[in-house]
Amino acid sequence: MRIWMFCSAAHFRTHGARRLNWKSKLIQTTMTSPTQSAVRWYPPSFDIRVEQVPVPEINEPDDAIVKVKLAALCGSDLHIYRGHAGINKVHICGHEFIGEVVKLGLSYGGQAQGRPDLYSNLKVGDKVVSPFTVSCGECSVCRLGYTCRCPHGALFGSPALEGGQAQYVRVPKAGGTLYNLSDTSSWSTSLSDKTATAALDKISESSLVLLADILPTGVFAAMQALSHPKVLTALTGRPCPLNFFPLKDLPSKQDALVQEDRTLTFAIVGLGPVGICAAVSLLDLLSAGQYPFRVVAIDPIESRREKMQAVYSKISPDGRGSGEFITKVQAWTSGVGCTAVLEVVGNNSALSLAYDLVRDFGAIISVGVHGANQVPFTGRQLYNKNVSLEFGRCPARTMFPPAFELLAKRQDVFGGVGDPSSLVDRIAGFDEAPEMYRAFEKGEVGKVIFDPWK
Amino acid sequence: MRIWMFCSAAHFRTHGARRLNWKSKLIQTTMTSPTQSAVRWYPPSFDIRVEQVPVPEINEPDDAIVKVKLAALCGSDLHIYRGHAGINKVHICGHEFIGEVVKLGLSYGGQAQGRPDLYSNLKVGDKVVSPFTVSCGECSVCRLGYTCRCPHGALFGSPALEGGQAQYVRVPKAGGTLYNLSDTSSWSTSLSDKTATAALDKISESSLVLLADILPTGVFAAMQALSHPKVLTALTGRPCPLNFFPLKDLPSKQDALVQEDRTLTFAIVGLGPVGICAAVSLLDLLSAGQYPFRVVAIDPIESRREKMQAVYSKISPDGRGSGEFITKVQAWTSGVGCTAVLEVVGNNSALSLAYDLVRDFGAIISVGVHGANQVPFTGRQLYNKNVSLEFGRCPARTMFPPAFELLAKRQDVFGGVGDPSSLVDRIAGFDEAPEMYRAFEKGEVGKVIFDPWK
Repeated sequence: MRIWMFCSAAHFRTHGARRLNWKSKLIQTTMTSPTQSAVRWYPPSFDIRVEQVPVPEINEPDDAIVKVKLAALCGSDLHIYRGHAGINKVHICGHEFIGEVVKLGLSYGGQAQGRPDLYSNLKVGDKVVSPFTVSCGECSVCRLGYTCRCPHGALFGSPALEGGQAQYVRVPKAGGTLYNLSDTSSWSTSLSDKTATAALDKISESSLVLLADILPTGVFAAMQALSHPKVLTALTGRPCPLNFFPLKDLPSKQDALVQEDRTLTFAIVGLGPVGICAAVSLLDLLSAGQYPFRVVAIDPIESRREKMQAVYSKISPDGRGSGEFITKVQAWTSGVGCTAVLEVVGNNSALSLAYDLVRDFGAIISVGVHGANQVPFTGRQLYNKNVSLEFGRCPARTMFPPAFELLAKRQDVFGGVGDPSSLVDRIAGFDEAPEMYRAFEKGEVGKVIFDPWK
Repeated sequence: MRIWMFCSAAHFRTHGARRLNWKSKLIQTTMTSPTQSAVRWYPPSFDIRVEQVPVPEINEPDDAIVKVKLAALCGSDLHIYRGHAGINKVHICGHEFIGEVVKLGLSYGGQAQGRPDLYSNLKVGDKVVSPFTVSCGECSVCRLGYTCRCPHGALFGSPALEGGQAQYVRVPKAGGTLYNLSDTSSWSTSLSDKTATAALDKISESSLVLLADILPTGVFAAMQALSHPKVLTALTGRPCPLNFFPLKDLPSKQDALVQEDRTLTFAIVGLGPVGICAAVSLLDLLSAGQYPFRVVAIDPIESRREKMQAVYSKISPDGRGSGEFITKVQAWTSGVGCTAVLEVVGNNSALSLAYDLVRDFGAIISVGVHGANQVPFTGRQLYNKNVSLEFGRCPARTMFPPAFELLAKRQDVFGGVGDPSSLVDRIAGFDEAPEMYRAFEKGEVGKVIFDPWK
């Protein structure tokens, strides 16, 4: 990186470049590069244009250039689309993409000693899934698995980093960011390399895009719910305070829990694509146990509830658990309430509903992308219910292995395009992008994937 | 309960009691009873009076009457004292007390078959600690250990239930509520009965009152912090997503964590008596492990910081960890931030400070009693830091065993009265109650305990 910076600065000084600052010089240079087709957002809102823009170049030694195979449209893209994100910079959209490495910076190969494996192993030609944020893979935050908050990170498809709805995309810190589909031995899964490779062969290409964001995010929501100490009481049969010591055997003279106490009740608020992924992950994890459970999935849009029903009938054909679609919150106010509520919407109305649904000593797991509104709870409300709240973005790189395993296991749900239970509604060309954004924002279409070469 | 209801209703009907409603009839009846001295709060605020009121009677079969030995003044009493709780009913104050059972309802003894042990075992003459809320001990909520949210519960010293700053107090559902100090075999501790009895003998009477609320609440805060999945990553060395499966061995190809990643940094915001209890519990739990940690204790009041320092020098004389008292939040904004922050104040200023202090993927554990203000976070703030929040009241009955063990172990801290490190500043008579409330509210005095017979 230092070398490149030095050369550039020297170039800038030598050539004078009157009245051109660093940024404008870069633009001047790249304007001479070959161009590509990309989906760009224009402020203030609802303005999507498909344009010819320069093909990205390697800017830093850790960069990779990925030729995009498929790129998806995500619910959280709508925050920018609607102009709710306070952004006014034109940029290429999209943070979910898969593709093939076509160029690598100077950091890769033999000179990558002491760095994450992918720096030495990643090769031009490798097929990759990119998590929706960049992570260096070398800092404490990354080591702890909190990759989406890496201090060197950035979100694709934001003012900070051009997105993946293009024919080519620059991936910074690619050795710490990408998942290399061409080298399953680099993964941390409970599958052997051979099994992982065999599993990969059976996974449809369109469903691989789900690994960039929505499937890891769904798994993240479900795992946060099931590992929360307030859920562990019922899940493990260890009442408070034993739930605080899941690893330790402590004596207890408390009465044993009965089935009523151990019945887990979950609600999922929001059945967009991430909500469905969360539901599938939750049901998959729950069905591995012997505890009674109930999952209630809630969305005001009928087509989403129908999708959930179609998914549900595949996952629980034996009738364990039960599915209901509830539009009237009032029906929920009687009784104890939910052990945990997964909030997969990202607004205050969803948070308030989650609060109404959750039991005393329950947990609200929010993976929705929230905006500038103050959260709709008073301190007294939270105190009076002993509520736990988990907020935030999925560390998608970290959650890749369990998400991959779920994807491989559940191709019946995730594998198709346009089936009643399939998450992917259609694969469109970039020429359809403005219309797809419009229809997606209106709830008229579900998950859309773009093929930049169609 | 049904029998008593029937008799009372019959009495009401038979005697006509013109224009008297149920409540006024009760007062009429009890006004003829013997009287006692009690500390009462008068609306709207700052009005504490010591008055003669009727000695409480058994109202329901599950009731016990406890002769109060000692009753303490708690920081959360100040919410009512200041008039912040929206209450306008005169009532006896106080929710922390120990005493001796002097009367029992019809539910106790031989007829208590199938009910919690205390119904058959509790006897007149038994010494007891009362948790600050009532719990039935027989419902699903109680079985899960969430006793402070028992649907049959109530808070002592509130409009719903007369408090313990009196010579006598009525304890509803006493068989599910009280801890019986005279029968250590009824406890769920990791100590044997013999050890527990021996430990009890060495515990000062004044410090037993701490078991009613503040010590269990401190332990609750510390245990919630240490068991949170976002703390378990560093604590157990299992990075995300392994932290979601503390009970399961999963393969991982992630890089091993280094000491920097595993160093736990905690802040305690608020060094009132509960804050000190939380600090002692946290340090005690941390010192059982081999992980590096740092605890930073914060309070604007110098005398409280001095108390914390005195306590700290007893707990960590070997210098493991380090204590700092920070008044300037700005000093904290550099660096990663705290693994977890314990918020032991109960206002928005403390919550905002906790947010500023906590790291990305950190946890805020709030045991402060919060009021009617909306919590001071936007959804975006919580999303952008991946913050976890734990709110609410301590289930004091549930937390009694670990709190008792800590009390026994740390008599050097908890045992004295008026020492630099002692939590109890003084034992006062009821005649001093108005002045003690005033001084406590102003931060001029620490923990005060009343002796109703002084």
